[in-house]
Amino acid sequence: MEETKESLKAKIKIQGEKVRTLKAQNADPNLVTAEVAVLLELQNLQKRQASLTGEESTVKGKNKFTLKTPKGTRDYNEKEMAVREKVFSTIISVFKKHGAVTIDTPVFELKEILAGKYGEDSKLIYDLEDQGGEKCSLRYDLTVPFARFLAINGTQYQNIKRYQIAKVYRRDQPAMTKGRLREFYQCDFDVAGVFDPMIADSEVVKIMCECLDALEIGKYTVKINHRKILDGIFQICGVPDEKIRPISSAVDKLDKLPWEEVKREMTEEKNLNPDTADRIGEYVKLKGGRELLEQLLQMQELTANKNAKSGLDDMALLFNYLEIFGVLDKILFDLSLARGLDYYTGVIYEAVTEQSRPPKLGDSMQINQNSKDFDYESTVGVGSIAAGGRYDNLVGMFASNKKGNIPCVGASIGVERVLSILLQKIELDRVKANEVEVYVIAVADGLLEDRMKICSELWNAGIKAEFMYKNKPKLQAQFSVCDRDQIPFAVIIGRDELNRGVVRIKDMRSKEQGEGGGTSVKRDEMIIELRKRLGK
Amino acid sequence: MEETKESLKAKIKIQGEKVRTLKAQNADPNLVTAEVAVLLELQNLQKRQASLTGEESTVKGKNKFTLKTPKGTRDYNEKEMAVREKVFSTIISVFKKHGAVTIDTPVFELKEILAGKYGEDSKLIYDLEDQGGEKCSLRYDLTVPFARFLAINGTQYQNIKRYQIAKVYRRDQPAMTKGRLREFYQCDFDVAGVFDPMIADSEVVKIMCECLDALEIGKYTVKINHRKILDGIFQICGVPDEKIRPISSAVDKLDKLPWEEVKREMTEEKNLNPDTADRIGEYVKLKGGRELLEQLLQMQELTANKNAKSGLDDMALLFNYLEIFGVLDKILFDLSLARGLDYYTGVIYEAVTEQSRPPKLGDSMQINQNSKDFDYESTVGVGSIAAGGRYDNLVGMFASNKKGNIPCVGASIGVERVLSILLQKIELDRVKANEVEVYVIAVADGLLEDRMKICSELWNAGIKAEFMYKNKPKLQAQFSVCDRDQIPFAVIIGRDELNRGVVRIKDMRSKEQGEGGGTSVKRDEMIIELRKRLGK
Repeated sequence: MEETKESLKAKIKIQGEKVRTLKAQNADPNLVTAEVAVLLELQNLQKRQASLTGEESTVKGKNKFTLKTPKGTRDYNEKEMAVREKVFSTIISVFKKHGAVTIDTPVFELKEILAGKYGEDSKLIYDLEDQGGEKCSLRYDLTVPFARFLAINGTQYQNIKRYQIAKVYRRDQPAMTKGRLREFYQCDFDVAGVFDPMIADSEVVKIMCECLDALEIGKYTVKINHRKILDGIFQICGVPDEKIRPISSAVDKLDKLPWEEVKREMTEEKNLNPDTADRIGEYVKLKGGRELLEQLLQMQELTANKNAKSGLDDMALLFNYLEIFGVLDKILFDLSLARGLDYYTGVIYEAVTEQSRPPKLGDSMQINQNSKDFDYESTVGVGSIAAGGRYDNLVGMFASNKKGNIPCVGASIGVERVLSILLQKIELDRVKANEVEVYVIAVADGLLEDRMKICSELWNAGIKAEFMYKNKPKLQAQFSVCDRDQIPFAVIIGRDELNRGVVRIKDMRSKEQGEGGGTSVKRDEMIIELRKRLGK
Repeated sequence: MEETKESLKAKIKIQGEKVRTLKAQNADPNLVTAEVAVLLELQNLQKRQASLTGEESTVKGKNKFTLKTPKGTRDYNEKEMAVREKVFSTIISVFKKHGAVTIDTPVFELKEILAGKYGEDSKLIYDLEDQGGEKCSLRYDLTVPFARFLAINGTQYQNIKRYQIAKVYRRDQPAMTKGRLREFYQCDFDVAGVFDPMIADSEVVKIMCECLDALEIGKYTVKINHRKILDGIFQICGVPDEKIRPISSAVDKLDKLPWEEVKREMTEEKNLNPDTADRIGEYVKLKGGRELLEQLLQMQELTANKNAKSGLDDMALLFNYLEIFGVLDKILFDLSLARGLDYYTGVIYEAVTEQSRPPKLGDSMQINQNSKDFDYESTVGVGSIAAGGRYDNLVGMFASNKKGNIPCVGASIGVERVLSILLQKIELDRVKANEVEVYVIAVADGLLEDRMKICSELWNAGIKAEFMYKNKPKLQAQFSVCDRDQIPFAVIIGRDELNRGVVRIKDMRSKEQGEGGGTSVKRDEMIIELRKRLGK
């Protein structure tokens, strides 16, 4: 369905005005970015159409390419990067506190390594062009490459705690405002190895909580469930084996859709018996704390099922350990949590914040999602901000024999979502991106070589310093840089002062104006004085 | 409710036929995907059952994938990563000392952005498969994406000092031993903006030297030349304009090939007049320090050529500034340095170490490369370990008008080569990859929950700690972990001690053997004592 040239032009005009209005209103930067992306997309469409009809030159001028990043990807400027690196280093220090190491894997894998690991989502995998040689695909997550790494190096890694923060790629429909892009960071922590039950699992949940606490993203809840309990419930309710995963993925939508919708998916799309669906509905609406576990352990049909019993026993241990680790108050045992990914085999968890959910769902877990005044369109927040679980057989899928299998448990911190929450709280413009401590300023005559000499001394002393790349810079221009870059100190030099062997050190955060002010120090005491002021 | 083996097999057959039929009918792709998912589910179920009944091998035999990373790529284990991150952080602190910020760009760009930027090497670019939508390629370097970034965001970035450390991709013939891979890190620092001449250029050279000093890779030399001087020389010698770049790239090989070979390339492959080649040969054999500059400034044919004169004037400024920055002793003015990349327009430089060159070329610059006992096959070392130059027109290639151009100067630290040099010096096995400070050990009874409690306290106090994921670990196994992971301290607990409210802290680096030794401290003074010992 082709846009007509005129309707497209009109759309571009409207979208352009929308963007201008938002900018004028100082709207949320994420929103502006998203609307700009829409505008660019429309303009690209116009260009593509123009190029088809030979009008390319008028639209593009002399350049024959479109100046943008690929759809669903974006650049990050220095201020965004400063925030991003802060978030990463916060998370990494938690991981390291728990003894984690990092590894690195290639950004693309052999296509066949990824094949059959992601179910329906496999269609979102980016393939590399066949330019001769092996067929490769961009990694879709960090878990499958990690499992592949373990399968190759298993003899050395009978156990490892590893973290990896790296980009992954999905040909999904981008939603810029929600921080959903085609290229995005994942931040994974996994423990591989054979241990006594639930110990590693509980440490992973503890680590997830420590990360979220350290990131100061506000109140959050960790929903926990167990795949074997779910499998048991499905068996008890009469779901045929081959439908367990599809039905499980329908259940997983209960945080976004009302029961009626989920039931419809089960019965109409997935051909489940309506009675079976209703029985499932009774179970998966249950949520609570430790008392729910006690309640479930009283239900004979559950404890009689091997899977359910085994899952409930795990949960009992987990509750113990999480209490010891002091994070029990964050936990919600939620039987509707299913997690989409096929490879989970044990405990699964997912952290949500207020921002993960719509305001109406916000405060109470008791809300009746079936009520008519519930607006499902507006209910999708940023989603979970951390998630994971146990996956005991994934490494085995790559191993040539049973001995090659290594059970794993892990968590992924949703760094992109965390970032989009944090970016709502801070003023990006006021973020100091560079770390310059001292700006070397000449009050007259330029004094380029003297400024260079002083900077060189500062660098050699490990002090972060800059000077203006001009022979004769204006004084005001130099002060403006200090202001713009939030540089705390200036070393100010003049011809007379240099002749007398002194320089002036000025605290640029003080409100003294103009070229005056500051403290005269002997040239050869400059470094000592600056170090003192910088607390070095 | 277990499927029988036979009923499952039958189901798989039927489902397989369903999928084939749908595909043959060109059915709705979503439907096909859904049915394929069911098929995969059934097959997975079969595999799971087979693995339970010990039939794994026959089924697995069908797994046709090769367990490896794609050609020219590799994994990095935790010890390699520890070394790598040390190198990166060393370099980044130098960059930050000079006021640099970092940005991030996508790993792939629109194909047309990269087109026409890399000359003959364009064939090495990785393309993404056309899965609908835009045509994209993996980035080949970080310079072109940076230029593209500036062209898009130019109004905000009339000047910026940025660094970027990220992976780039080239479908080159891999040479693992020399650290040449298809996926490798580049580490770039560039200064963009209009400034007075050679100031930024000299700071970039200074930064390059500071990085190499901080990395402690040993003695190195920075070869410097100027594209305009080369262009002037080629004009003076009579090289036709259209042959200047090809001849330049031949000259660039003089560090690896003898003059005869280079001359042959010029005259036979590139059809240059042999007399012209010989005249070039006279110039490009010149190398030296500041005195060479003085010598060249005396040569009338050079100063009469506009290009050469302009280049020589730049070099004079550069020598001044590099002296002020205290790095003149590292510099070698080398007229044979040409640098392959087309986009350089001014000063160019390249740092080499002993390891960059073969032993025979090692110590003396005066060696006669034409001598017969010179073994050219063995002469290729790791190559230059840092390089860069001025490129004033690259951003302009993306800009819609002249105003959009931004001149740039930069350097790239060859981190992969630096790493391969450093890895020759260290014993990788002895690198401590994790940062654990305290291991919590039980002498008897397991005491799992007590170990967990103590670890939790340590984590909450910011101390890096681990314990063994076993209910009843053996004492010797716990000691072995301390040894293997070079963990400096242990907190040792026993039932009696816990009852008395004490724990033992033991320095694991001391040579006391067995479970004895260490200092008893009150349980509630444990953190204080450990902090003291850790110097926190």
